[in-house]
Amino acid sequence: MHVSFEEAQHIIESAVTKSKELGVKMCIAVLDSGGNIKAFARMDDAWVGSSDIAIKKAKTACYFAMPSGEIGKLSLPGSPLYGIEHSNDGLITFPGGVPIVDKEGNLIGAVGVSGDTVENDHIVAVAGATKCGQCDMPKHPWRT
Amino acid sequence: MHVSFEEAQHIIESAVTKSKELGVKMCIAVLDSGGNIKAFARMDDAWVGSSDIAIKKAKTACYFAMPSGEIGKLSLPGSPLYGIEHSNDGLITFPGGVPIVDKEGNLIGAVGVSGDTVENDHIVAVAGATKCGQCDMPKHPWRT
Amino acid sequence: MHVSFEEAQHIIESAVTKSKELGVKMCIAVLDSGGNIKAFARMDDAWVGSSDIAIKKAKTACYFAMPSGEIGKLSLPGSPLYGIEHSNDGLITFPGGVPIVDKEGNLIGAVGVSGDTVENDHIVAVAGATKCGQCDMPKHPWRT
Amino acid sequence: MHVSFEEAQHIIESAVTKSKELGVKMCIAVLDSGGNIKAFARMDDAWVGSSDIAIKKAKTACYFAMPSGEIGKLSLPGSPLYGIEHSNDGLITFPGGVPIVDKEGNLIGAVGVSGDTVENDHIVAVAGATKCGQCDMPKHPWRT
Repeated sequence: MHVSFEEAQHIIESAVTKSKELGVKMCIAVLDSGGNIKAFARMDDAWVGSSDIAIKKAKTACYFAMPSGEIGKLSLPGSPLYGIEHSNDGLITFPGGVPIVDKEGNLIGAVGVSGDTVENDHIVAVAGATKCGQCDMPKHPWRT
Repeated sequence: MHVSFEEAQHIIESAVTKSKELGVKMCIAVLDSGGNIKAFARMDDAWVGSSDIAIKKAKTACYFAMPSGEIGKLSLPGSPLYGIEHSNDGLITFPGGVPIVDKEGNLIGAVGVSGDTVENDHIVAVAGATKCGQCDMPKHPWRT
Repeated sequence: MHVSFEEAQHIIESAVTKSKELGVKMCIAVLDSGGNIKAFARMDDAWVGSSDIAIKKAKTACYFAMPSGEIGKLSLPGSPLYGIEHSNDGLITFPGGVPIVDKEGNLIGAVGVSGDTVENDHIVAVAGATKCGQCDMPKHPWRT
Repeated sequence: MHVSFEEAQHIIESAVTKSKELGVKMCIAVLDSGGNIKAFARMDDAWVGSSDIAIKKAKTACYFAMPSGEIGKLSLPGSPLYGIEHSNDGLITFPGGVPIVDKEGNLIGAVGVSGDTVENDHIVAVAGATKCGQCDMPKHPWRT
């Protein structure tokens, strides 16, 4: 199952609302469980370069069914996944991308946010994703 | 000046409303005048492959300040611009992309739509763009 | 031998002067004989999308040591080089790119112009290139 | 508003003059505020590989409205933005790229320089950019 268009719109709204609360300017991407773009928004005065980062964070979270920052813990020099960012036409492995998981534990999409500190990016992504599901995958199985 | 986030949202809404009237499933992209993505929506059951086409149609309309289909008239085999699609990391030169022009004749962005016949794609793009401007560039000048 | 920086600047100036005479807005690229960018100019109100086309026309003229439009005659459907535009990360095979050749018949670079009709693009490219050489290669040999 | 062609030419001239003072061979790129190329120069004997670096430094400064080296401080292993270079078709995050900001605090473009030490690259970029504006963004707002 994929996140629906209506859900994707709610995710964007929820992320924008949270961004305004925090006083930050964000780019927000919603992808379906196949990693394909469903909805996107760049708020006024958000960095132009954050658009691609938001999309790639969401792709990273979707492709590996975990928050982008979790991959980042494993991709440092000397760590097992060093250089994984070179795969899949570019991953972004710092925080701000989270999976969207339904009640049965199925991955239904991902949200990626970029525009402020990685802590705020993550907070806004979670605010968006939890509008339509949870961000934690069960240990196994997960299905796209 | 660029299309604002609020305007981009109105463009998406207007294009979605028109799509529903026509009973079609569309991907809709809004770019600023620099060709950078501002907002995007993929309606449920729209082709996944239409996302990139919508973005590239909008890019084509933005980069040349005219509807994408106008370029297409010139890019057929034997025509002056044959093969222009190979430039700019890929252009799409059939209808569905239109520029957004403000009252002073400045290009402020572009809308690209893909998902149905090129006639319907164009109709939906115009319905979106005219929410915030017109689609016709003055002869000259135009400024990005 | 390569076109020098001073020569490249003269080529740009000469092409801009010719563009103003014609009342057109151009993108102008100068590449060395290795196909690497040496100088570039986008005049005000020139299409943003013409930048890449100008560079690719020059690349096409440089890589094959002939005007870009000559390749275009051979790349139409059913012709021997159909689809050559897919090579070399994208060629542009309509007029506007010309080689720069020194007195000994050596290729020293190429000029690419985009922004108006292909006829005007070619005229401006020749106006630039002939500032520092000729546009015709001897039958053979040619050396980069 | 974007940097104009005349301004871009002055930026190139100013950067070339400073390069000659320092006795260095540089590649210099000027982009508009949308990240699209406006003018470019590669001085004689500058590294061919520096052309793309100059363009990517300018893109980095433009997309994030700050000097490229500022991003580099945050993208080291273990730092919050580790791996950001994989976004936007490649960023360059060492010094040599600076934004161009007008008196009202609007981003109007960026300059990227590559060819010598990163310190000299930065000095030459600033010499270029300050010909037409300042390099410091106000805290907020900034608009492209």
